Amino acid sequence: MADKQKQSNFTIAKATEKDIPGIFDCVKELALFEMAPEAVITNPVVYLEDWLKGWFEVLVAKSDDRIVGIALYHPAYSSWKGRMMYLDDLIVTESYRGLGIGKALLDAFITEAKKSNAVICKWQVLDWNKEAVVFYEKIGAELDKGWWNVKLMTLSYSLWQSDIAV
Amino acid sequence: MADKQKQSNFTIAKATEKDIPGIFDCVKELALFEMAPEAVITNPVVYLEDWLKGWFEVLVAKSDDRIVGIALYHPAYSSWKGRMMYLDDLIVTESYRGLGIGKALLDAFITEAKKSNAVICKWQVLDWNKEAVVFYEKIGAELDKGWWNVKLMTLSYSLWQSDIAV
Repeated sequence: MADKQKQSNFTIAKATEKDIPGIFDCVKELALFEMAPEAVITNPVVYLEDWLKGWFEVLVAKSDDRIVGIALYHPAYSSWKGRMMYLDDLIVTESYRGLGIGKALLDAFITEAKKSNAVICKWQVLDWNKEAVVFYEKIGAELDKGWWNVKLMTLSYSLWQSDIAV
Repeated sequence: MADKQKQSNFTIAKATEKDIPGIFDCVKELALFEMAPEAVITNPVVYLEDWLKGWFEVLVAKSDDRIVGIALYHPAYSSWKGRMMYLDDLIVTESYRGLGIGKALLDAFITEAKKSNAVICKWQVLDWNKEAVVFYEKIGAELDKGWWNVKLMTLSYSLWQSDIAV
């Protein structure tokens, strides 16, 4: 059970370069929770390069100078709604849950979205993650269950598969 | 039925400013097909401003100088996979389907993804859009049905809802 004392001790701030390894540790922890640790093919070196080039932003929650949660996000666009901010990962390390850190990270993320004049924020949740679903519904987010994700590893795609006409 | 003669007549190119109204017409047509025309709150003026500011890119397919298809996309990031290119919309106007335009647009999109060193391309498909699902599986894309979309209209969110601890 998390110590309630921790609650007043966390801070939320934009990531700096030295936070990158701790951010990666959080991502690995979530991948383990989502039962797909082998799906993570990134590493802290890749993160640092891509973060420096602006591919994503991170908000970090810290307690006693240790990263205990992250919100990893980037700008996106909806042809229907306009400017969007996409939350790729919202993670609170297990022993720090229930203290308001997830909500504080989400608030900070939405504040960043507002600064960019993004009209909509979007993210995804696993269909079996009941606790997260309840949380998102509680804050007024809308769940949309009718879409499937389609993904393609870029390098495995050959342009010469030209026998398909659509 | 589409005239097969059209097949050799289309071109694919990156959008220019004067293409914006035709791009919006394509988006409206798809929204109608997906039975949600009222969900479109953008317009060509918003598109132009956001496109000029780099929020998204568009590839346009043209036949006889008319836009007959689009691929609207932007960079994104996966904490698990790294650099991503996200395809928000892939549209071929109805009378031009079956001629290879959708495949050509997808090829051009993936070529752009490769140029950016994006390791993964992602998009979404409605669960009842069988024809699109078959097409995506045919080109080797993977369908992931276990995630739900969560969306929040930024302006409707109040940060003072602070009684939720997660």
